[in-house]
Amino acid sequence: MSVALKSVITETAQSLEEKLTSLLGEKVLPQEVARPERLLEAMNYAALSGGKRLRPVLMVEAARLFGHENEGTLVAASALECIHCYSLAHDDLPAMDDDDLRRGRPTTHKAFDEATAILAGDALLTIAFDFIADEQVHPDAAIRLRLSQELARASGIGGMAGGQMLDLASEHRDRTEAEIRQLQAMKTGALIRYACRAGAILANASDDDIARLTRFGEIIGLAFQLADDLLDLTGDAEVVGKATGKDAEAGKATLVSLLGESHTRQELSRLISEADELLAPYGAKANTLKTLARYIADRES
Amino acid sequence: MSVALKSVITETAQSLEEKLTSLLGEKVLPQEVARPERLLEAMNYAALSGGKRLRPVLMVEAARLFGHENEGTLVAASALECIHCYSLAHDDLPAMDDDDLRRGRPTTHKAFDEATAILAGDALLTIAFDFIADEQVHPDAAIRLRLSQELARASGIGGMAGGQMLDLASEHRDRTEAEIRQLQAMKTGALIRYACRAGAILANASDDDIARLTRFGEIIGLAFQLADDLLDLTGDAEVVGKATGKDAEAGKATLVSLLGESHTRQELSRLISEADELLAPYGAKANTLKTLARYIADRES
Repeated sequence: MSVALKSVITETAQSLEEKLTSLLGEKVLPQEVARPERLLEAMNYAALSGGKRLRPVLMVEAARLFGHENEGTLVAASALECIHCYSLAHDDLPAMDDDDLRRGRPTTHKAFDEATAILAGDALLTIAFDFIADEQVHPDAAIRLRLSQELARASGIGGMAGGQMLDLASEHRDRTEAEIRQLQAMKTGALIRYACRAGAILANASDDDIARLTRFGEIIGLAFQLADDLLDLTGDAEVVGKATGKDAEAGKATLVSLLGESHTRQELSRLISEADELLAPYGAKANTLKTLARYIADRES
Repeated sequence: MSVALKSVITETAQSLEEKLTSLLGEKVLPQEVARPERLLEAMNYAALSGGKRLRPVLMVEAARLFGHENEGTLVAASALECIHCYSLAHDDLPAMDDDDLRRGRPTTHKAFDEATAILAGDALLTIAFDFIADEQVHPDAAIRLRLSQELARASGIGGMAGGQMLDLASEHRDRTEAEIRQLQAMKTGALIRYACRAGAILANASDDDIARLTRFGEIIGLAFQLADDLLDLTGDAEVVGKATGKDAEAGKATLVSLLGESHTRQELSRLISEADELLAPYGAKANTLKTLARYIADRES
């Protein structure tokens, strides 16, 4: 990745970090409300853990592609990241994936306790729908409402939560390639798709452009998951920042275990080419998004 | 309660039941999404368990007070009830209140399993923000967005979730009356307050009327909680449909344990009088809401 592009992405992630920190800070609670300090701390812990901020970066860059760039986009991106981070806190729970380590730190229920981790997840999920309704996000209430409803759909039973359920339900039994593709499109794909789509919607892009960015998001989501499966198979836990080899241990078939490593790498390059073609009409303006696609496919952590 | 009024309330609860059943039925998932059947079942189990539907009934009656009555109000009320039911499913979890019985049936994690109960709660919470954004709710997107954002605030760290955290954090230690009042205003009060307020907002009521219904909701929320504490102290588990005596067992001070039973009953009548006064300007149109207030204060289950 060129140094200039890398710094654009790092800067966006940094801006998101600052916005989310400020949103989850003092301003969250009105004066008359008692402060559940431990819950606030756990929400901050779960949300501000130095992740890659991939979804927010995609949203900001998708909006920027259409010349849209303001504080409100960071607020919308913060809402999306709260949803992503709530899902990590809940997925890590003993009753779910039972993980002790996330991004090299204790998971939320390890750092606090299970009840607090459940509530912190609930509260992060809930606050996303407060943030996305913020006037700053877009001057048109109808657009903010659309973003809010689409966020709910991407996160709920037809999206992320439904995908997690399908994943849990299919442990220790044979899964077909089609089943895995469907559950991954829901579990991880839906929010990544939303990120790209919402950026275009925020920018008042045309329906054609929104559809193009939506398809780009779907491709990125699939590439992200394939790269993740490869990392789980071949990665180093210390570099990845979480336990690897978990899928094999849990008896879970992944696309990589069905397709094989070299086939998976071929599919990844095919996806990157498709992403490039999709973005071709935008010329050099799309360079950051193209680079991001490549980075997602080649990532080592 | 007069037979006519009782039948109005029963009818509203019945309409809500039908609306929520249809909303959580086939239409929830688009065609292209794989069906996480177990999750759908658990969401239905958690949401359609024959509760009193107090919050939806309050919302519908508050809207009706201002002449507003349509299918959309039931959709908004269903959203609110999904939030309430998600909170029950999560609060019952072993890591939280660890309850096996709810309304005389096994709790969601007992009927399914912990992971499924967590996800069903997450998905119910999420789908509320899909439902509330539905066009049917109100023709004005700005009103729907306002209802959505206020729902998030009533449910999140500054409301229900924050109150549950304060409740968990104050077990086995002395709590002051002020602390208990604050945590209850958040834990149970915020959603009941929202129900009354949202009904007035849906009906395009004036700011004065919205404020009056908001205060009415606060009073009802407090009365509900006092009656609940009395039931926990003196009620029969079989009639109440859940374990009683839990607060004392958990070493939790309640307002009743601090104020005493007779003082609590006095406060309850004072609240009912205040509710009557608040609704006086609406004359006979407010009879159902007044009766509801009385029913909430005197309930035996």
